[in-house]
This record gives sequence, structure tokens and C-alpha cells, in this order.
Amino acid sequence: MTMTEDFTPLDMNDVDTIACVGIGTIGGGWAAYFLARGYRVKAWDPSPDAEPKLRRLIDAAWPALTKLGLAPNASKDNITVHTDLAEAVDGVGFVQESAPEVLELKQNLLAQIDAVTAPDVVIASSTSGYGMTEMATEAANPSRLVVGHPFNPPYLIPLVEVVGGEQTSAAAVKWASAWYELIGKSVITMDREVPGFIANRLQEALWREALHMVDNGEATVEQIDLAITDGPGLRWPIQGPMLTFHLAGGEGGMAHMLDHFGPSLLSPWTRLDAPELTPELRNAVIAGCDEEAAGRSVVELVAERDEAIIAIRNAIAKVKGGA
Amino acid sequence: MTMTEDFTPLDMNDVDTIACVGIGTIGGGWAAYFLARGYRVKAWDPSPDAEPKLRRLIDAAWPALTKLGLAPNASKDNITVHTDLAEAVDGVGFVQESAPEVLELKQNLLAQIDAVTAPDVVIASSTSGYGMTEMATEAANPSRLVVGHPFNPPYLIPLVEVVGGEQTSAAAVKWASAWYELIGKSVITMDREVPGFIANRLQEALWREALHMVDNGEATVEQIDLAITDGPGLRWPIQGPMLTFHLAGGEGGMAHMLDHFGPSLLSPWTRLDAPELTPELRNAVIAGCDEEAAGRSVVELVAERDEAIIAIRNAIAKVKGGA
Repeated sequence: MTMTEDFTPLDMNDVDTIACVGIGTIGGGWAAYFLARGYRVKAWDPSPDAEPKLRRLIDAAWPALTKLGLAPNASKDNITVHTDLAEAVDGVGFVQESAPEVLELKQNLLAQIDAVTAPDVVIASSTSGYGMTEMATEAANPSRLVVGHPFNPPYLIPLVEVVGGEQTSAAAVKWASAWYELIGKSVITMDREVPGFIANRLQEALWREALHMVDNGEATVEQIDLAITDGPGLRWPIQGPMLTFHLAGGEGGMAHMLDHFGPSLLSPWTRLDAPELTPELRNAVIAGCDEEAAGRSVVELVAERDEAIIAIRNAIAKVKGGA
Repeated sequence: MTMTEDFTPLDMNDVDTIACVGIGTIGGGWAAYFLARGYRVKAWDPSPDAEPKLRRLIDAAWPALTKLGLAPNASKDNITVHTDLAEAVDGVGFVQESAPEVLELKQNLLAQIDAVTAPDVVIASSTSGYGMTEMATEAANPSRLVVGHPFNPPYLIPLVEVVGGEQTSAAAVKWASAWYELIGKSVITMDREVPGFIANRLQEALWREALHMVDNGEATVEQIDLAITDGPGLRWPIQGPMLTFHLAGGEGGMAHMLDHFGPSLLSPWTRLDAPELTPELRNAVIAGCDEEAAGRSVVELVAERDEAIIAIRNAIAKVKGGA
């Protein structure tokens, strides 16, 4: 990816107001999150019922945000809804675009936002599918346009995937990643555009396998959900798929796992073919797990996982018992 | 699958002792769980260091099991380790086999267990990969042999997948499912043998996509794990992949989701091709979600999800803070 360097962003500590362009489920969720972090929000949406829907969404999210901890100056009233785009972005230090997933619409809207937003402001798109290279084609200043892909609901799920397009400046990507981290997000900065980014690719592979199973009568919808919620899903909030298998290898960790269970990659356990387990891939996965483990032995990781699973199970039991 | 009816199981309320054949990570985890549920356990393993390893595993698991709640008469001392297989299964009401995943070994061991176990006892295999049809070939009484596939660690993850082979009696499958439920497990009873069962197929699709991404330099091991732990992984202990997308459809639920985002199934968001979204598949998925929702609106499910995510995040923060 060629990154231009023709963009100098403002100081993120000076940001006090954020524009949310598009305020459906995702944009409204972002608005709720920004408010909870103590920012003022200016929202724009062409839909006539957008404002009442937004207020309901923020009202519904606020108790959750309060439980997670509000910034000292947070107020759900620090928001204004505008019908004029230029007015909505006037004076803001950051723009989060969350319009519907229609490429032409995104292309035109990002060009319009770019045209009326101060030149030192980063503009991020919540797109879950498009790359910025294809979305930025109509914009005069593509160097400050980045993808900032959240997960639903953006006010509770920490993950944001940040990636630029071919014309995005490295400075804008760097600024966006640091900015999301500043406001409490977990950021993955990707160095290239990959369709579906990372989390959606993983989630989509699982989802497609599930659809195939329903399609073939191999499992019902309920069985698939139970298989995840009462199975591997209980481990994934604490240890991802890689670290999970690091532990499955026993005290030998991922190296043992790959060397002994590697052949099962050839089994027809999913419709997705596995890559060849070359020495390079094997070593990359083992090294990555070692890095993540950061000195913790498998025994220590098991203890941490177990404590988390108990806490998660007890927390869920409490929520379900109270419902 | 042809199921024979030549097996009459004992009354599961009469079970007070269980045999664990093979006591590595999985078999030892089962032993810890059975002890915590108040049963006596008789263990067998050919490895000379199996017993000390087992004691360490049970000692390590016991605090977790105590936090989840022990049966009134539970004791981690209610276990004996045997070198003679016939002695280990003598007087037991259920056998859980958890030997290494080597087909010939499983075939011979299941035949040996079958030969020395009382005829009204169900024998379950923890296999994560083989079908009972191929494992039961050497056994004299295949009608009482079933797969009872747990997840690691079996003493904390509730899921057990139950499925018979071609020669397994329906009575044995039914008994095993009811038995695992009686002792507090979440049971999925499959009506046919599918390689990888359900949860492993889903998990394996995600894992293979992850390996492809590492192989192609699209993501690091750490990014993949963060993408799950801080992203969709936070939703999966409370709502599986199906119900997750039911909520992603907004108030229109899964029907809206499939009708509007169905085309994205054709996007190259994973290396796994999607099935064709026929009207039949569409309707089956929607009907399954409706059944799971059991009258709860999307708004109610969102509230339940949000409360659970907060509880999960707070629980994990506490565990990590205390570590």
C-alpha cells in the first residue's frame, strides 16, 4: 500500500466534540460511547425519525455505560442532531461515519464530509466490508480517510479495526489508532486491506460453516448456538483461538499441539480447507503464542482461563437468573 | 443410521461409581468433574506417571469446582487408580473412555472395556474426531457404545456432544444424553455422525481461516486472538452465532438480516464458500432463531446481551486485575 504523507492531524488532546454521520444501530452506538467518554457529539442523519431512535438507543445504553464507568463530565444530553452536514461537522475534532453499507452512498458521503470538514480532522468509516481504497474515490482529500470498524454494540465491545486505503496517509492511520486507544478501545491496526478485516473473516468462516450445517440438516439453529455458548464460546472472551490451542497442547503448548494434531488439519472437520502446515507457518504460530503468553507458563494460563470461565459462568447465571 | 434395540441400560439413579479409562488432560478433567458431582471414580491408565499427574490435575481443578458448587457428598479422595482394566470397571454404572486419538487404539480399548464391563452399562468415548461406527468395529456389544464428546476443561465447560454409531442402540444414546444432563452438562444429541461433530466443526472453520491469515501475513497470532477476545468473543458466551446475527438485524431480526445482508455471503470475507441462501435455508434459520428467542423480542435480547457483556467484562477485568 502506498501511503501519502500530506496530512497533518490536530492534537487529539484538543478534541472535545465528535461528529457521528449516520446514527442507526452502529452510529447511534458510537454516539452513546463518545458521550459516555465525556465528549460532545454532533449527529447527522437524513432519516426523519433518526433523532427519536437515537435518543431511545442512548437511553437504553446509558445504564450499561454507567455500570462500566462514565467519564467525570459525561452526559447523555451533550448531543445535538443536525439536518445540515456542514453544520454537523463544524468545530468537531473527529468524524465517525456509519452510513448504510452501500458503496456508492459511502463514496459520495465521504466526499461530502471531506469537503466540509476542517482539514486537520481524521474521518473514519465504520464500514464492515469495504476497503478505504474503493470508498475514497470521490474524496478530494483521501489522505485523512480511514476505516475504523467497530463491533456491535460499539458502546460495549472494545474492538476497533483500523486500516487505511492506498491514498490514506500513515499519519491518519497512526492518529486514528492512537485516538481510539485514548478513548478506551482495543485497537487492531492492519497494514493492508483484507476483505472482512480480521474479526469478521473469522466470524464469517464460523457462520458459513453453521449455515452449511443447517442447510444439510446436520445441526439445528439451536444446537449451533448451544455448541458455542456452552462450549468454546466460554473460553473466547479470555483466550482467543490461538491461545486456546496453545493450552490444548498441554505443557508442551502450541508446538506440541501442532506437531501431534497437525494431521487433523487434513480431516474433513469443516468445509474450509486448511493451509499446508509448513515449518514457517508452524514456527510463526508457535512464536506468536509465546509472545502472547509473555512468560506465563501453560499451567499459569490454565489457571487464568479457569478463573475467568468460572467468573463468566457465574456472571451469566446471575444475569439469566435475574431476567 | 440403523439403530438396534438390543440394549437395556441400568437405572441411572443407581449409578454411584464411574470408570474413567484414560486419565490425561481430558480423562482427568472428567474424573475431577465426576468427583465434584459426588460420584466415586475408578481410574485406569497404562502410563506409570498417570496417577500423580491425575492427583495434580484434580488438586488444581478443585478450587474452581468448589466455586461452582460441589455436591454435598463430593470429595476429591473418592478415587482409586487401577492397573487392571477389569478391576477398574467392576461395579461401575458408567464408563468414560478418554484414550489418545488413535483409531486402532480406541477400537481395541473399547472392545476390551466392553468385554469386562457389566452388560447394562453405557460406555462413552471422549473422542473429538472419530465416529462410533468406525471405533466400535472390534467390540462384541457395540449397541451400548456412544460418543460423549466434552470440551476442555471438561470440569468447567458444560457442553457434551452425544452421538451413536450405526450399531449403537437408540436406548444407549437416550440414556447417555439423559445421564449427562442429570449430572449438570449441556447436551447436544446428534441424530447422525458428522466429522468433527458440531462445535469442533465451527471452531475448526475459524481456526483454519486464522491459520490462512497468519500464513499470508494478513494478521499476526496476537491480532487474531485480540480480534476474538475483545470482539465477537465477548458475545458468544451469551448468544451464539445465530442469535448474534438475529440481533444484528435490528428490530426485524434474522429475517431482515438475511434479506439485506444475504448478498454479503458472496463476498470474499473468508476462504470458505457460503451455501446458496435458498428460501428453505432462509426460513429454517429464521424459524430456528424465533424458537430460540422463545418470545423474547430483539429489544429484550439486546438488553440481556448487554447486561451479560458488562458482567463478563467486569468479571474478566477482576480476574486480570487480581492476576
